[in-house]
Amino acid sequence: MSPSNSTDPHAAGGIDWCRAPAAAVDLNAREAAISRQGNLTKPPGALGRLEDIAIQLAALQGRETPGVDRAWISVFAADHGVAAAGVSAFPQEVTAQMIANMATGGAAISVLAKRIGAEIELIDLGTVAPVAPHPMIRDAAIAPATANLAEGPAMSPVQLEQALGEGAAAVERARASGAELYIAGEMGIGNTTAATALAAGLLGRPAAELVGPGTGLDHAGLTRKRALIDAALARHAEQLSDPAAALACLGGFEIAAMAGAYIACAQQGLPALVDGFISSAAALAACRLCPGAADWMLLAHASAEPGHQAIVAALGKQPLLDLGMRLGEGSGAAAAFPLLRLACQLHAEMATFAEAGVAEKAREA
Amino acid sequence: MSPSNSTDPHAAGGIDWCRAPAAAVDLNAREAAISRQGNLTKPPGALGRLEDIAIQLAALQGRETPGVDRAWISVFAADHGVAAAGVSAFPQEVTAQMIANMATGGAAISVLAKRIGAEIELIDLGTVAPVAPHPMIRDAAIAPATANLAEGPAMSPVQLEQALGEGAAAVERARASGAELYIAGEMGIGNTTAATALAAGLLGRPAAELVGPGTGLDHAGLTRKRALIDAALARHAEQLSDPAAALACLGGFEIAAMAGAYIACAQQGLPALVDGFISSAAALAACRLCPGAADWMLLAHASAEPGHQAIVAALGKQPLLDLGMRLGEGSGAAAAFPLLRLACQLHAEMATFAEAGVAEKAREA
Repeated sequence: MSPSNSTDPHAAGGIDWCRAPAAAVDLNAREAAISRQGNLTKPPGALGRLEDIAIQLAALQGRETPGVDRAWISVFAADHGVAAAGVSAFPQEVTAQMIANMATGGAAISVLAKRIGAEIELIDLGTVAPVAPHPMIRDAAIAPATANLAEGPAMSPVQLEQALGEGAAAVERARASGAELYIAGEMGIGNTTAATALAAGLLGRPAAELVGPGTGLDHAGLTRKRALIDAALARHAEQLSDPAAALACLGGFEIAAMAGAYIACAQQGLPALVDGFISSAAALAACRLCPGAADWMLLAHASAEPGHQAIVAALGKQPLLDLGMRLGEGSGAAAAFPLLRLACQLHAEMATFAEAGVAEKAREA
Repeated sequence: MSPSNSTDPHAAGGIDWCRAPAAAVDLNAREAAISRQGNLTKPPGALGRLEDIAIQLAALQGRETPGVDRAWISVFAADHGVAAAGVSAFPQEVTAQMIANMATGGAAISVLAKRIGAEIELIDLGTVAPVAPHPMIRDAAIAPATANLAEGPAMSPVQLEQALGEGAAAVERARASGAELYIAGEMGIGNTTAATALAAGLLGRPAAELVGPGTGLDHAGLTRKRALIDAALARHAEQLSDPAAALACLGGFEIAAMAGAYIACAQQGLPALVDGFISSAAALAACRLCPGAADWMLLAHASAEPGHQAIVAALGKQPLLDLGMRLGEGSGAAAAFPLLRLACQLHAEMATFAEAGVAEKAREA
C-alpha cells in the first residue's frame, strides 16, 4: 500500500484518523427491535440481557433483526521489553511458541474459533524468538519487542502508527470477509504489565489499585510489578493526558493494534466483542482517542485479573460472563459469542403473541 | 407399561424408588481430568470455571475427556389450582397456548433447542384449556390442574407418584436416545407461587424471603401472593419435614415431574443442567429425597426471581450465567449449554505443553 494512495484513510500518515468520531448508531432500528421484543411470546424482559444484546446489535447493524453468524478473530501477538524485569511467570520465548501453537490448532483460541465457526488470523507484530512462516500467520513485525516501558517510551511515534494501522487493516480484512462481529485477541509475555500501566495511566490510578498476578506471578513478582508500574507512571507522567502518548509510552504493539482495531470497528460500523483485561485496556485507549467508540463495544467477560473492574467501570459497560477466566487470546470473547448468536436467533425466530395465538399479560389498569 | 413388569424399578408402586441414593461419581476420571487440565497450553486455572465444568463432567461421565454433544430437553407443563387466587400476570389458558407454541417452534425454548442441536419433547401433565394433539407433545395428563395449595394439598399421593414417574420416564427416553446431558424445563401459569411455597417449606423460611414477581406481577399481586404462601405454609406445616409430602402439598405436577427426572438422572448417572427458579425448587426437593443427587447437577443461571439465591445456596452450587433471565421453559439451561460444550471441547482438543513444544511456567523455588 503506497502512502500516496489517496483513497486510503490511513495513508496520509500519522494517527489523526484515530481521532475521527465513531459511526452513528441507528436509533430507528433500536426502537423497532425494542418493539419486536415486546411482542414476542414471553413476559416482557424475561430473557434479560439476551434481549439487551439483540437490541444493541439492532442499533449497531441498522436492522430490526440483527445477526452474528460470522465472527472474525484477529489475534495480535508481540513481545515486551518490560519482560526483562521479571514481570511474568512464563519465559519470553512463549510468545512465539504460542503463535505456532495457535496456528497448529492447539491453543484455547484455536479450539474455540473452530467450534464457534469463526474465522481466525494471527498477526505477528514482533517477537524475540523467531516465528516460522505459516499461512495463518501474518508477518507484520515492527521490532523484536517494544522497549522497556520502565526505562523509556515502549514505542516510537512511528511504531505506534504502524501498530494502530495493523489493527485497522485487520478490521478491513474482517469486513471484506463479511464478518458481522469482530473479536480481537492477544498474546504477549509481559502484557498484563503494559496493560495495567496503560490503564492506570489513562485512569489516573496508582498501580496498587489495578495490578494483579497475570498468568500466575508469585508474591515477590507481584511486588516487583507494582513498583515497576508506579515508577513508569511517574517517569511518563507528563505524557499521560494524551491517550496516544500514553499508548506509546506504556502500551505494546499488540495493545496498540487492538486499540486501532476497536477504533476502526467503531468508525466503520462493525460491532466488537471485547475480551478481558488486556483487551479492555486497549478498548479504553480507543475510547479516549475516538469519540463514541464505546457504543460499538460489547464486553464479553469479567476477567479474574483484579484491575479489570476499574476498566469496565470506566467503559460504562457490563460484561456478559463472569467465569473467572484470565487467559487472553480472545478466549473469553469466543466463549461468550454463542450467547450473542442465540440472542439474535431468539429475537428473529420466536413467535409474536399474535402469530402464536397466545394471550398477552393483562394490561394493568 | 404394566405394574407387574418386574424389570421396571418404578413398577412396584409408591415412591420409594426416589429415596435410593445417587450413583457414585468417578474420582479416578476426575483426577485424570485435573491432571490433563494442568498440562494444557495455558496458565494453570486460566480458563476458570470452564476447567471446573470439564472436570465435573469427567467425574460424572467416568472418562478423562467428557463430551456433551447431545442434550435432551423435556419441558413439563401443567396447570395450578392456585392460579384461581390471582397470583400470575397471565391468564391460565396461556399454559396450553404455550405448549402449542413450543410444538410449532415459536417459544424461546423451541428456538434455543433447535439452535443448540438438542432434542426436545413436551410433556402435558394436565392443563385447564385443551391441548391439541401434536407429535412432539406427550399426553400424560394427571388432572386438568392441581388443587389449590392454599386450600389443601396440591395433589394426592397417587398423583405425586404419577408425576415423579413421568419425570423418570422422560430420563429413560433421554438415555435411550444417547443424550449426554439432561435439561428439564417447565411451563405452568402460577408455578412461581407453587415453587416459592415449596422452597420456603423445604428451607423453613417465610414467604417474604423468597417471593418475587414471577412473570410480572404488580405490587398488589405480589402482596396477595406472599400472604397466600404464608397461609399455605401454616396450613401444611406438619407435612413439611417430609420432602415428598411437601412436594404433594405445595408443588405442581410439572415440579414433581422435574424432581423425579433429577432423581432418575442422579440414580442412573446422567448429568443434569438445572434451569432457573422453578427448576431449582424441584432440584431442592430431589436432593432432599435422594441422597447425593446434587452431585449430578450443574446450575445454569442465576434467575432474576429474588428467591433463587436462597435455593442456590441450599444446593451448594454456583450458577454459570447471570443474565437477569426469568422465563423458565429450560431457556436459561439451553443458553448455558454452549459453555458446557466448549468446556469439553477445550479440555479434549487443546494441545499439552509437551505436544506443542511450549515452555511451561517456571516452577517456583
